[in-house]
Amino acid sequence: MEKIKDIELKEGVSPTQIVKGMKQAGFQASHLGEAVELIERMKQENCTLFLGFTANLVASGLRGIIRELCEKGFADAIVTTAGSVDHDIIKSFRPYLLGSFNADDVELHQKGVNRLGNIFAETKGFELLEEKMQAWLKELYGKEKCVSPSTLTQFLGEKLPEQSFLHHCSKNGIPVFCPGITDGAIGLQMHFFKQENPDFCVDVTKDLKQLSGKVLLAEKTGAIILGGGISKHHIIGANIVRNGLDYAVYVSTASEFDGSLSGAQTREAKSWGKIKERGSSVQVNCDATIAFPLMASALKEKGLL
Amino acid sequence: MEKIKDIELKEGVSPTQIVKGMKQAGFQASHLGEAVELIERMKQENCTLFLGFTANLVASGLRGIIRELCEKGFADAIVTTAGSVDHDIIKSFRPYLLGSFNADDVELHQKGVNRLGNIFAETKGFELLEEKMQAWLKELYGKEKCVSPSTLTQFLGEKLPEQSFLHHCSKNGIPVFCPGITDGAIGLQMHFFKQENPDFCVDVTKDLKQLSGKVLLAEKTGAIILGGGISKHHIIGANIVRNGLDYAVYVSTASEFDGSLSGAQTREAKSWGKIKERGSSVQVNCDATIAFPLMASALKEKGLL
Amino acid sequence: MEKIKDIELKEGVSPTQIVKGMKQAGFQASHLGEAVELIERMKQENCTLFLGFTANLVASGLRGIIRELCEKGFADAIVTTAGSVDHDIIKSFRPYLLGSFNADDVELHQKGVNRLGNIFAETKGFELLEEKMQAWLKELYGKEKCVSPSTLTQFLGEKLPEQSFLHHCSKNGIPVFCPGITDGAIGLQMHFFKQENPDFCVDVTKDLKQLSGKVLLAEKTGAIILGGGISKHHIIGANIVRNGLDYAVYVSTASEFDGSLSGAQTREAKSWGKIKERGSSVQVNCDATIAFPLMASALKEKGLL
Amino acid sequence: MEKIKDIELKEGVSPTQIVKGMKQAGFQASHLGEAVELIERMKQENCTLFLGFTANLVASGLRGIIRELCEKGFADAIVTTAGSVDHDIIKSFRPYLLGSFNADDVELHQKGVNRLGNIFAETKGFELLEEKMQAWLKELYGKEKCVSPSTLTQFLGEKLPEQSFLHHCSKNGIPVFCPGITDGAIGLQMHFFKQENPDFCVDVTKDLKQLSGKVLLAEKTGAIILGGGISKHHIIGANIVRNGLDYAVYVSTASEFDGSLSGAQTREAKSWGKIKERGSSVQVNCDATIAFPLMASALKEKGLL
Repeated sequence: MEKIKDIELKEGVSPTQIVKGMKQAGFQASHLGEAVELIERMKQENCTLFLGFTANLVASGLRGIIRELCEKGFADAIVTTAGSVDHDIIKSFRPYLLGSFNADDVELHQKGVNRLGNIFAETKGFELLEEKMQAWLKELYGKEKCVSPSTLTQFLGEKLPEQSFLHHCSKNGIPVFCPGITDGAIGLQMHFFKQENPDFCVDVTKDLKQLSGKVLLAEKTGAIILGGGISKHHIIGANIVRNGLDYAVYVSTASEFDGSLSGAQTREAKSWGKIKERGSSVQVNCDATIAFPLMASALKEKGLL
Repeated sequence: MEKIKDIELKEGVSPTQIVKGMKQAGFQASHLGEAVELIERMKQENCTLFLGFTANLVASGLRGIIRELCEKGFADAIVTTAGSVDHDIIKSFRPYLLGSFNADDVELHQKGVNRLGNIFAETKGFELLEEKMQAWLKELYGKEKCVSPSTLTQFLGEKLPEQSFLHHCSKNGIPVFCPGITDGAIGLQMHFFKQENPDFCVDVTKDLKQLSGKVLLAEKTGAIILGGGISKHHIIGANIVRNGLDYAVYVSTASEFDGSLSGAQTREAKSWGKIKERGSSVQVNCDATIAFPLMASALKEKGLL
Repeated sequence: MEKIKDIELKEGVSPTQIVKGMKQAGFQASHLGEAVELIERMKQENCTLFLGFTANLVASGLRGIIRELCEKGFADAIVTTAGSVDHDIIKSFRPYLLGSFNADDVELHQKGVNRLGNIFAETKGFELLEEKMQAWLKELYGKEKCVSPSTLTQFLGEKLPEQSFLHHCSKNGIPVFCPGITDGAIGLQMHFFKQENPDFCVDVTKDLKQLSGKVLLAEKTGAIILGGGISKHHIIGANIVRNGLDYAVYVSTASEFDGSLSGAQTREAKSWGKIKERGSSVQVNCDATIAFPLMASALKEKGLL
Repeated sequence: MEKIKDIELKEGVSPTQIVKGMKQAGFQASHLGEAVELIERMKQENCTLFLGFTANLVASGLRGIIRELCEKGFADAIVTTAGSVDHDIIKSFRPYLLGSFNADDVELHQKGVNRLGNIFAETKGFELLEEKMQAWLKELYGKEKCVSPSTLTQFLGEKLPEQSFLHHCSKNGIPVFCPGITDGAIGLQMHFFKQENPDFCVDVTKDLKQLSGKVLLAEKTGAIILGGGISKHHIIGANIVRNGLDYAVYVSTASEFDGSLSGAQTREAKSWGKIKERGSSVQVNCDATIAFPLMASALKEKGLL
């Protein structure tokens, strides 16, 4: 059994050294340290790597890291929500702003500012999304009337500039699965588009084969899941067909006590065969905007990124 | 300004009296008391009422209350996840069991038991779902090859017995929107079905018009949202087209600090126009399995159910 | 193994029936149901019952229930914080007000209003406490120069009117242990008093014998602990000398993941011998202002209060 | 208004650079970035700096950082709990071990292992504490029969080796206030000691003058508060006498919704005059074992440690 070691601060310390010190410190610091080691092992063992995240993280500066994971081909498949697509499109053209959790929301609404926690997203960005999406949907519709969500995200990535994570997914052939594709601003645009083009269709069952294929063809699978909800469940649920993930790292703030999927710890997934009985897994209970930049910096230092 | 009043325990106290005492007690008790009052007002003002919930609540005994809300036509539209459909189907034929959060998940897996917090769902129930779903999808497919999620849930409700909430929705013409319909056991069954019937399709854009119509045609709208994720966002997002909900009650355990949609308080929704600037709203920070039975008992006593 | 049963809403339902329905519903509802049963057993087996709570609950309407537990001799010993004494004194003379979590705190400060969540406590109440405490400390000091915390709380209870929980503790000989007695407004008053009377002394080691005696002389012990911090730990820590509590019910919102005592679940206490290996215990993850009024109403109905 | 900037991963990145990137990323990452800046300003403006922390952090590897803050004279006063003293004593002689949150607590108890989250503390360490404390209390009692908590912690620090944080506090004249001094294993030892020496006394009112003096004599005050409970409140409460702290950084996992002091955000303290109306403050919602090593590494790099 390892000893708890007092963290020693040193000048010129690197991310890997911080993470190593955390590993021996107990509580969530140890979980973070273990998470980095598990991700290292995922890569060493050539796992097919699934990356899941919630939309708020794309609104945040974490998009930079997500983008790099796509650019470097670190992830083999993405599962995320409609909101992630919204934010990736808008932020490619117009920055979000750093505000405050305690802002007056009625006042913000009057000024055309939408709030996500302490991030402010101006309504103008959503107007821009409307304009772009209508043109893009028209173009896509010209090619194919009934698309899968991943076809749509692939297409959007081709339209978006380099700062977008979708851009790099499209470039690198990383599918972006989005099982709840209509639940966002892009969904509203699809609704508007369909009013003019009633045979426009997004068939969500079309992606199941490709996702299932990714899972079944892999020698081993691993997942990094930031946040909860549909992105989280869709990754672990997809891995049932191979009796579970070999590796799983969750970074989450949700609680277990209410029996929700978002709060379910990795061990719960073992009962379902969503993580293998002998699968290695850890949950870091932490806001991903704090935990993941440190984890990713350590992975970068290790040459894995 | 109201005074904080000490709660007085009395013999023969009714749910309404408990809730009334809570209203004046401060902290989340006051929020619960206010939530009941807001729901009362929603009904008094004939709001079109949206009810959203996460799948774990259908796995729990809360399904009984959800079902009654559908049976009595209390809700005008449901938004939920694929897992809710899974659990509603399975539990119509086979009960779930009360287990423990600390069970050994590897052992459970070996015994064919899947865990949601302290609820145990046997794998046999999912096998039963497979059998039923394949037959039902075949039948549905015979009628219509490309369905919307709410067409599927309507169809399933017609097949299910009285203890199912879907049964009552179908009977009462309450649409059950399920924007992430493939993310669950029924999604896996659709995948299997589509392998044999490649032109089977679930077009998620098909529901947008109906949902939007519900929102636009209403004189006033109100929402009761239990838990977070896609069910929560889809309801408030849909209400953007009318500049927001008039009333909103959230019951949630998620935290605001990480900027997630699940943790976003009602006031955040005002910046987006998802709740009206002058909309009345409250969040009860509580596991819905504790808060909602008490709230619903009070509503029952008031004759609203 | 018990089945999860759908909750059935009924007219004229009583608290006990609600709680019974919750017991079979899963998640924290089941924990609440189990908690009521454990408290019933504590009383049936004549456990010496320790009641712990944090100060905010005395600021809230829960004071009414706490008071009744003292009035009826339901609890045999109280462990709480200095703030509980502060609020019990002030609220005996001046009500607190129901405000809002989102109030402007700078503005409140300028108006002489202190905020605890959504409860407002006017500065005038603290001025009143100052006046009273100086007179009372003088009187107590006239009798005894070096007191234990429980001597002070006993003395204060004798001064306070019927709505105070301390009043009933003093009347019924229920000791109120307050190991962190200086950490509150009464602490500041002791500081002022000591400046004039340097040999005034509060010896915290004086209470250890009495507390330990309560624990050692009991045939069985049980605890109801609302919230975390020093009140929680002091009760379970005191029970080490008898190899642990026989029964423990925690009602808490704190999380386990950070290794804090406040978030530690009941099972952790078993490793320490703070709860017996075979002790029965449950944690209800919930704001006590919601969970405890319902629990107490059920206990009342059962004739235990 | 600042823009949200995508975090860029770079090779050879230093803690300060990570923190700077976080500052612009939104959510709690921004709060962490702001916290480091506020601490920098506390030092630049020569604030009297109060450091508060809960006992679990001394059990963890964070003790190394706490020790360094004391060794370098970074903190001017410490406020903590009895458990911190327990763990500092024991760990000076015997390491704690890295275990698991899911360990079987009954089994651990049988093996003489006490669990704090995923940290294991063997009972042997507590036996060692007993032995040491009895000898030390005897020695202290020989000098002074009625001590203040900070006299006791000063004395203990003189006995403890270099890895102890108390050692460095004693060496550097940093008072360690411990208003709940009896609530821990050292409390139990005081109880045993007092049985033989009834006039042994710990007068908690003795520390109030010194603490108050620290606050009143300071030109400016700042606080770094890790976790909640009595340590947190005692620091902010002490600053009432000067109309509040000039700077405050909280690192906490507790929630605001239940009105608890542990979960109260910095803005709530402004209503009380515990933080100045114009005081600068931020809360980092995060397990301190993750947030604080990164923050401290950045402070080290800036030469503040």
